[in-house]
Amino acid sequence: MATRAPNVEDVARLAGVSRQTVSNVLNAPHKVRPDTAQRVQQAIAELGYRPHASARRLRTRRSATVGVHLNPYRGGISGVLLDRFVHALTESASKRSVRVLVHAARSPEEELHQIADLTDSGEIDGVVLSGTDHEDERIAWLNARKIPFASFGRSWNGDGERGNFRWVDVDGAAGTRLATEHALNNSGQNIAFLGWPSPSGTGDDRERGWAEALRAAGIGGASQNPGPRAVSADSVAQSRMAAQEMLDSHPQIDAIICASDSLAIGAHMAAVSTGRPDLLIIGFDNTPAAEALGLSSVEQRPELVADAVLKQLFGATGNTVVENPGDASSESVLITPKLIIRTPITAQAPIDPDSHEA
Amino acid sequence: MATRAPNVEDVARLAGVSRQTVSNVLNAPHKVRPDTAQRVQQAIAELGYRPHASARRLRTRRSATVGVHLNPYRGGISGVLLDRFVHALTESASKRSVRVLVHAARSPEEELHQIADLTDSGEIDGVVLSGTDHEDERIAWLNARKIPFASFGRSWNGDGERGNFRWVDVDGAAGTRLATEHALNNSGQNIAFLGWPSPSGTGDDRERGWAEALRAAGIGGASQNPGPRAVSADSVAQSRMAAQEMLDSHPQIDAIICASDSLAIGAHMAAVSTGRPDLLIIGFDNTPAAEALGLSSVEQRPELVADAVLKQLFGATGNTVVENPGDASSESVLITPKLIIRTPITAQAPIDPDSHEA
Repeated sequence: MATRAPNVEDVARLAGVSRQTVSNVLNAPHKVRPDTAQRVQQAIAELGYRPHASARRLRTRRSATVGVHLNPYRGGISGVLLDRFVHALTESASKRSVRVLVHAARSPEEELHQIADLTDSGEIDGVVLSGTDHEDERIAWLNARKIPFASFGRSWNGDGERGNFRWVDVDGAAGTRLATEHALNNSGQNIAFLGWPSPSGTGDDRERGWAEALRAAGIGGASQNPGPRAVSADSVAQSRMAAQEMLDSHPQIDAIICASDSLAIGAHMAAVSTGRPDLLIIGFDNTPAAEALGLSSVEQRPELVADAVLKQLFGATGNTVVENPGDASSESVLITPKLIIRTPITAQAPIDPDSHEA
Repeated sequence: MATRAPNVEDVARLAGVSRQTVSNVLNAPHKVRPDTAQRVQQAIAELGYRPHASARRLRTRRSATVGVHLNPYRGGISGVLLDRFVHALTESASKRSVRVLVHAARSPEEELHQIADLTDSGEIDGVVLSGTDHEDERIAWLNARKIPFASFGRSWNGDGERGNFRWVDVDGAAGTRLATEHALNNSGQNIAFLGWPSPSGTGDDRERGWAEALRAAGIGGASQNPGPRAVSADSVAQSRMAAQEMLDSHPQIDAIICASDSLAIGAHMAAVSTGRPDLLIIGFDNTPAAEALGLSSVEQRPELVADAVLKQLFGATGNTVVENPGDASSESVLITPKLIIRTPITAQAPIDPDSHEA
């Protein structure tokens, strides 16, 4: 290892004071005469002394560290979203001197065991949850132990105990509403929706935005669906099939709003094979895959989610955890996503004028 | 917060011994009589006492924590690779009780400043680097400070000071060699390569595997390139153009080996528009985008990279950092990637027999 880091004793020696005086300068400055304090501060600066983090943590019983569980890598086009969130959280945390400790577990039980370990040992002050679902056992467990936490993702059932926590989520309906309004303004009145089988908290929310935007424009009347609607599992191959059937039975479709980028890529492939490479297809999540193919998509803005989650845990600034209030519902935050419009690569003119047809 | 966590005093009181005896049971068990030790252990179990991590760290001057810098999210199909590595590293670290602390910086200077901060304060014992490049200033800096580190990614120039560090990397040439051999066995003799403009450490390495496999099969002779070769920036739109030109001027191409999945997706789109949706195209990185489109790709196996990096830092097992040796060249590890073969979705038969042509 490098030459030994300077310690309190070195500082005391250089400043010509006792260890206790150095400690007082750091922890109880009102006990020290100003000229002595200045001499000690000078010695600290000269030596480049830093109090050991562990000593500081023992003293304050705070680690200024937040724990984040990383789900096992499962692949999938939209899997990147949670990684973008972790990136954004780490950047946002760095700005307020909060550390981010990531941990991985193979089961929910192991995840809770690790959180218990990290909080009992004082390594983390709080937890950032993600991927919350209908019956999320972690929420009651964290509430019972009074471990401070905030979540990226709401609880869809929202009942009593489970719903009572601080969360930040993206307003999916607002995203598909934006997408549908763009389609109405630019493509036509016949706007289809391609979603996931119901019930799906996230999927039903996104479908609602599409239906609301069409009804607000006076389209659909009293019918159950204000436009063509199909569902598919979240795979390109299956959504291509579903979109193909929908395009065959409704050849007059002007655009397709999709619940995910996987669905959008499948719909785009169906549109290309129907001879409509420029049919407006709008996905959700703004993934690298959609970007690479030039597909439009709804961007979730994970940077805003990360900022809001840290604000719930640590307040507007700083790195001291804010206790969980009794009723957190008033603090929940819905982020409005934004729409990214692109031209599909298959519909773009060749870049090279000497090139043959594309 | 929850009711106070039990401390050494509680354990001492319940076991009817002194604080010093409890401390001896934890740190110097040979000093304690077996029956006393048993009583103390029973009290520890009964109270659920855990030594505070900060106290343990102060005692041992070890944090059993490794720091990982997260690069800012830049999008891009292959950006997911480093996130997969962080996932794998976190899982592998959990198994040996090593903590992973992620941090984010907006510049290389800020990254080094954060590493200094984290090591000086004893929060991390070592560093895992990624994204090393030709002139990586971090390596000399870490070596000069004797901060233990290991890297995912080699130094391509490999000269003196900069090359002298522990790294794990993926054998890119082995990957494209596997891909080319598969193409020779299954598609034909006319195997093209689509890469990035030279010089590129990673790109030139991947091209070498293609050329070597063809020459080993007696193809290409003394010519500079043993098959059609084109380069493109790493974008789908541009690689589609480059592949289109190559397919137009060499209509007899049997397969295209690509330096990345972005290049492969562009090449696949060119093949589809040429009426050859089933032309064998093999990418690199096995990204979710390639998987979604049913494209073949070379998988880097980040799990093996993560295991090897932790082994370099912490030895075969455990969580105590192994000091950097003077000459690390003998310890460097090259992981052999594996080939994932798929059928493109555009070339797959429709799933639904009632469906129209795809």
